[in-house]
Amino acid sequence: MRPQILVTNDDGITAKGINCLVQAIKHLGDITVVAPDGPRSAQSNAITVHDPLRYWKQYEEPGVVAYRCNGTPSDCVKIGAHAVMKSQPDLLVSGINHGSNSSVNVIYSGTMGAAFDGCMMGITSIGLSLCSHDPDADFTEAVRLSVPIVERVLKEGLPKDVCLNVNFPDIPNIKGVRVARQCRGRWMERFVERVDPLGRPYLWLTGDFVNLEPDASDTDEAVIAAGYGAVTPCHIDVTDHAAMAQLSAYNYDTEKEV
Amino acid sequence: MRPQILVTNDDGITAKGINCLVQAIKHLGDITVVAPDGPRSAQSNAITVHDPLRYWKQYEEPGVVAYRCNGTPSDCVKIGAHAVMKSQPDLLVSGINHGSNSSVNVIYSGTMGAAFDGCMMGITSIGLSLCSHDPDADFTEAVRLSVPIVERVLKEGLPKDVCLNVNFPDIPNIKGVRVARQCRGRWMERFVERVDPLGRPYLWLTGDFVNLEPDASDTDEAVIAAGYGAVTPCHIDVTDHAAMAQLSAYNYDTEKEV
Repeated sequence: MRPQILVTNDDGITAKGINCLVQAIKHLGDITVVAPDGPRSAQSNAITVHDPLRYWKQYEEPGVVAYRCNGTPSDCVKIGAHAVMKSQPDLLVSGINHGSNSSVNVIYSGTMGAAFDGCMMGITSIGLSLCSHDPDADFTEAVRLSVPIVERVLKEGLPKDVCLNVNFPDIPNIKGVRVARQCRGRWMERFVERVDPLGRPYLWLTGDFVNLEPDASDTDEAVIAAGYGAVTPCHIDVTDHAAMAQLSAYNYDTEKEV
Repeated sequence: MRPQILVTNDDGITAKGINCLVQAIKHLGDITVVAPDGPRSAQSNAITVHDPLRYWKQYEEPGVVAYRCNGTPSDCVKIGAHAVMKSQPDLLVSGINHGSNSSVNVIYSGTMGAAFDGCMMGITSIGLSLCSHDPDADFTEAVRLSVPIVERVLKEGLPKDVCLNVNFPDIPNIKGVRVARQCRGRWMERFVERVDPLGRPYLWLTGDFVNLEPDASDTDEAVIAAGYGAVTPCHIDVTDHAAMAQLSAYNYDTEKEV
């Protein structure tokens, strides 16, 4: 039986990135697309618990059936795996995202939110991103390097409880792929304050990314800057195990109170 | 100068949990509340990038000024720190949440999304949760044990890049507090399918949590089940460092293609 592959993204079902991806990998298995009905960038692992979810068939072609959904990327994974597909998919691929999900962007990313969701459900999961927010970005190089990664993951699987965060530089000739760790970084955020036509103030979030490890060579940021795709194995255990011993003073027994 | 404390949550500014928290810790510093204008459960680290953000003063009392915001918990942290407060807060406290954020719930949690946001901004950050979704839950015990934790964190700070995920059992006499790691677990999800009055189908997400380490004693789930509050140090590096070496076959140079 052909591999059953679930595809989603956070830019919405009409985005160029997801459609390039589907065309590039549809020879590898039966593709079910369940993607948001519009942009859901920066939705992280948000799921919809206070509102009903709906999905509609968007298109069908040989080997591909595609649905749009009114939820988040994580909702799309759950609907794909539990409502649309007849059995748990063999692989989840999320992307190709328009924009980087390296460093702390992985925390906000809806693309990676979907991959984490798949990972928690026991589905082999990959998030793919191109470091360009341009709706008309050129995905040729990202696709060229994504296909062998998807093939390898389909063939070999991934370590237990691990999913991949793959980020490609937006350059004409990507030099290859390197396994890399998540870079320490942060957004220096600010708000643009404006006034609407009724005189009410509102804010738009903006900011600049700062690499907090500019001299490291083994980070996703460094690898991308060097012209390579960065493959970062990710997990959903956010415990800082090293800090546990440092916090032993927090252990406390009520009965010892006087 | 008194500590400047930012308080948020994901249940919204009128929830019982955040109001119990504010009253319990307002003697520790000047409190600025920036909380969602309604429920934002399961919003993870979602931020609002496609819509304008707004905030309004909700109430003011000695030592406390409170605003509601139309965004997510993460948005509230950014608005609090960058738009409302005159300087970066000394402490962020998110909660007290109505519902558990132990195990994989930490990934979906808006309460912890806010704490991760604070952590990424370099603010000492704590998320507090009570394992009860009841809007009228009794926060007496959770408050009793939260106050000394907040006091300790204010006095001693936290390890670099670490925030706390604190979860209290919903019992009349909590036995104390234990430092614990995030339990492996997952949600066995399913959708309730219904039809609306216009004949259109819709889905509600539901499911049951499964503890994948039922025999472990050092997990947050085990500690809570034993009658203790669980204090889990968390970080925002989701790299699976152990898997990096296993994935070395992914390293690949384009120029070696023939």
